[in-house]
Amino acid sequence: MKLLKDKILNEGKVRKGNILKVDCFLNHQMDIKFLNEVGKEFKNRFKDEKVDKILTIEASGIAIAGITSQYFDYIPVVFAKKTESLNLDKEVFESSVHSFTKKKDYKVRVGKEFLKKGERILIIDDFLAKGCATKGMIDLVQQSGANVVGVGIVIEKGFQEGRQVLEDMGIRVESLAIIEKLEEGKVYLK
Amino acid sequence: MKLLKDKILNEGKVRKGNILKVDCFLNHQMDIKFLNEVGKEFKNRFKDEKVDKILTIEASGIAIAGITSQYFDYIPVVFAKKTESLNLDKEVFESSVHSFTKKKDYKVRVGKEFLKKGERILIIDDFLAKGCATKGMIDLVQQSGANVVGVGIVIEKGFQEGRQVLEDMGIRVESLAIIEKLEEGKVYLK
Repeated sequence: MKLLKDKILNEGKVRKGNILKVDCFLNHQMDIKFLNEVGKEFKNRFKDEKVDKILTIEASGIAIAGITSQYFDYIPVVFAKKTESLNLDKEVFESSVHSFTKKKDYKVRVGKEFLKKGERILIIDDFLAKGCATKGMIDLVQQSGANVVGVGIVIEKGFQEGRQVLEDMGIRVESLAIIEKLEEGKVYLK
Repeated sequence: MKLLKDKILNEGKVRKGNILKVDCFLNHQMDIKFLNEVGKEFKNRFKDEKVDKILTIEASGIAIAGITSQYFDYIPVVFAKKTESLNLDKEVFESSVHSFTKKKDYKVRVGKEFLKKGERILIIDDFLAKGCATKGMIDLVQQSGANVVGVGIVIEKGFQEGRQVLEDMGIRVESLAIIEKLEEGKVYLK
């Protein structure tokens, strides 16, 4: 997706440790017109699939998934929660995820009423690196008896194993931009 | 907003302790067509105001704010972060918020580059109860030298003091539905 590649090259910043920051348009401040183009492109990639619902994870997947739903005839969006809420019902699907960014494990949860057997679920997220969060979401879907149609990712870190892990599970992965490497403060896109 | 009131009465559930749950359309599963009506209504309420940016807070404000931006000519949306991220720059505005739901204090943060002196900020959130999270966001805006145009809330708990607290600070509050009371498992709307 050319618009996304241009935005990564023009607005992304590489911080020390070769961490790509795109928080000026994707995951802290959000460019909503741009997210509409992302949504259109996800629809284009998955146009041959019947999709009943979009699943994402808080927090940075939420706006992307919400805007994307508009291009899938406004299907419901569910976001997996990372924190235990006193208001969340006890009846939840739960999975454990390791965060390399935060160096700890955390639980992800979805209320059982929001994932139903036989539903066709599109998983959407901002980043794919090692695939931990995505695997957690796939686990939630599988616990419910619903089916994963595919995974739509805005930015894939192509130098990490996430895609391989998911494809080995038989999951279709569509990324709108793939980073080949981050080196000496520069981004190299595939 | 009639559509919202109908949804609260038809789809909302009152749990023990008189807690209103609207997680089937607002803050866990999200009805995106409905959120578009919410966005239109916020635009209608604030149509006479120049707004440069929308500020919300993770997680449940994000989709509402993102969809709402589409009715404000796609202005940028910034969400305040509740968790410390290794990827978040050190240069942040920070405020402390008490959560009565989670019975603890937490920090909210926005990168300094995303709130600028003189900007006109509309704050959007799903709920207003005691006003703690909203006050935290107002504090972030004021630290930056930007101005709060107003606060747009989907559901206000009219029996708690949030509105009074904000209006005493001179802040305009627009709520799309106001709950008068929750009693014996029933919702009474104003």
